[in-house]
Amino acid sequence: MAKVRRLVLDVMVPNIADVTKLAQDVADVKTVHGANILVSEIDKEVINLKVIVEGDNLKINEIEKVIAQHGGTIHSVDNVVAGKEIVEDVETPQD
Amino acid sequence: MAKVRRLVLDVMVPNIADVTKLAQDVADVKTVHGANILVSEIDKEVINLKVIVEGDNLKINEIEKVIAQHGGTIHSVDNVVAGKEIVEDVETPQD
Amino acid sequence: MAKVRRLVLDVMVPNIADVTKLAQDVADVKTVHGANILVSEIDKEVINLKVIVEGDNLKINEIEKVIAQHGGTIHSVDNVVAGKEIVEDVETPQD
Amino acid sequence: MAKVRRLVLDVMVPNIADVTKLAQDVADVKTVHGANILVSEIDKEVINLKVIVEGDNLKINEIEKVIAQHGGTIHSVDNVVAGKEIVEDVETPQD
Amino acid sequence: MAKVRRLVLDVMVPNIADVTKLAQDVADVKTVHGANILVSEIDKEVINLKVIVEGDNLKINEIEKVIAQHGGTIHSVDNVVAGKEIVEDVETPQD
Amino acid sequence: MAKVRRLVLDVMVPNIADVTKLAQDVADVKTVHGANILVSEIDKEVINLKVIVEGDNLKINEIEKVIAQHGGTIHSVDNVVAGKEIVEDVETPQD
Amino acid sequence: MAKVRRLVLDVMVPNIADVTKLAQDVADVKTVHGANILVSEIDKEVINLKVIVEGDNLKINEIEKVIAQHGGTIHSVDNVVAGKEIVEDVETPQD
Repeated sequence: MAKVRRLVLDVMVPNIADVTKLAQDVADVKTVHGANILVSEIDKEVINLKVIVEGDNLKINEIEKVIAQHGGTIHSVDNVVAGKEIVEDVETPQD
Repeated sequence: MAKVRRLVLDVMVPNIADVTKLAQDVADVKTVHGANILVSEIDKEVINLKVIVEGDNLKINEIEKVIAQHGGTIHSVDNVVAGKEIVEDVETPQD
Repeated sequence: MAKVRRLVLDVMVPNIADVTKLAQDVADVKTVHGANILVSEIDKEVINLKVIVEGDNLKINEIEKVIAQHGGTIHSVDNVVAGKEIVEDVETPQD
Repeated sequence: MAKVRRLVLDVMVPNIADVTKLAQDVADVKTVHGANILVSEIDKEVINLKVIVEGDNLKINEIEKVIAQHGGTIHSVDNVVAGKEIVEDVETPQD
Repeated sequence: MAKVRRLVLDVMVPNIADVTKLAQDVADVKTVHGANILVSEIDKEVINLKVIVEGDNLKINEIEKVIAQHGGTIHSVDNVVAGKEIVEDVETPQD
Repeated sequence: MAKVRRLVLDVMVPNIADVTKLAQDVADVKTVHGANILVSEIDKEVINLKVIVEGDNLKINEIEKVIAQHGGTIHSVDNVVAGKEIVEDVETPQD
Repeated sequence: MAKVRRLVLDVMVPNIADVTKLAQDVADVKTVHGANILVSEIDKEVINLKVIVEGDNLKINEIEKVIAQHGGTIHSVDNVVAGKEIVEDVETPQD
């Protein structure tokens, strides 16, 4: 089955979560090469994160498990890149 | 006949569809090198996707079949690149 | 005579036209290296396309013939690049 | 005398002019390496063109002659690049 | 544990703080390769800074200690990059 | 003394000035490697130009002399780059 | 102590100051590799400058001294880059 090479996740964690530790824990998942976490919104009780993960054969449930250990949930999967080659987005007039 | 090298598709799938699995299944089509799926809108019952597929000799009906297996349909074909070389878009004052 | 290396065409085709097949047919014209078709507007009866064609010695009438076979017409030629070297657009304060 | 390496011209031609042929004729001028013509506005009777010409020792009057043969006139010279090296524009806060 | 390779911090320091010295002190932390400090807002009593730090195995508490020595505090951690490879942000329609 | 490597000048010339010839004359100044002239505004009697000059050891008064020979004046010096290395602009939140 | 590699300064000089000479004098400071001065605003009596300085071990007080010799003052330090490597700014959703 085609390998998942990149995932962009919209994630919500409690305000007390340690985002630095979360990035490290996601990057420690065996198939993950690296993780980039951007804070998109900080509310009273929760923080919204954009989590970009790249790897060779990503398993979303393994990443979800790590996020859950930090009290977080995946709101949506915003981008999935799969296959032998990494295909990038191209702009079209319909965007 | 000239080979189709890239397709950008506007796709609608039911809300329960597994977008990660869809990307893998599209990438598993024999002529596909890679697939990039971006979620453009999430509604109550459906998800709108921008699906970018690159390969050597893409067959749109094979990709459509995979999308249909996930309960989805192609709304429109927004970009087709065909030929010996990949030609990119160029900006003009008419855009 | 100087060779035409790139053409950007504003094309209108009937709604029932097969854009993927059109891209392949344009790319199959002998002097064409590749074609990129972007859908710019979809109306009830027609589709407006931005057609970017690159090649070594493009003949616009050969490309027009293929477009006509799909029921389409060229509304305007928005960009022509000709010569020994491909010259790209440069921004000026007059744009 | 320093060589002119690039000219960007604001050109007006009658609506019946053949822009593709104009690009080829400009590119056929001896000192021209390539020409890029962008259609900036189409009116009832005239077409406004942005003509970018690159070469080794461009003579504006030779290019003007070709444009005149197509019934066109140069409205303004919007960019001139001259010298041993091609100097590009740099953005400043005064732009 | 996965190494933290980049941190982007939203930092507040008193108006009298020496931003140049702060950048040097952050860059002097053992695991830091370099620091880039941008002043985002200057108020009567405080300065808001965007602090970008790159290194091989960044420890946020060591950086926080240096910031505290300058009378500053970290308001938020806006970006964390961790892992074997540096993953960059990718644009999605959800941004 | 440190060498001036680039100058961006805001120049005004009479409407009858030959901008192409001006670019050549500026490029013919001994320390100049190349000149790029952009027309920023055309008024009834004058033309405003953005003149970008690069070289090894530019002397602004030599360039000013050439501009004066075309009836022009330097309104302002908008950018000066000097030194052993060419330093480019960097964006900051204060821009 | 970590070396300062780049400084971006918001500088005010009297209207009569010679910006070209200022750029040369800043570039002549021993640790400076190059200087880029952009004029951001010209008022009746003063000129506001964005001064970008790069070097190996910049001392802000040496640069300040040169600016003072031209009658100028540093309004603010907008960017400081220090360390073994030059770290560039990265965009985040918090910008």
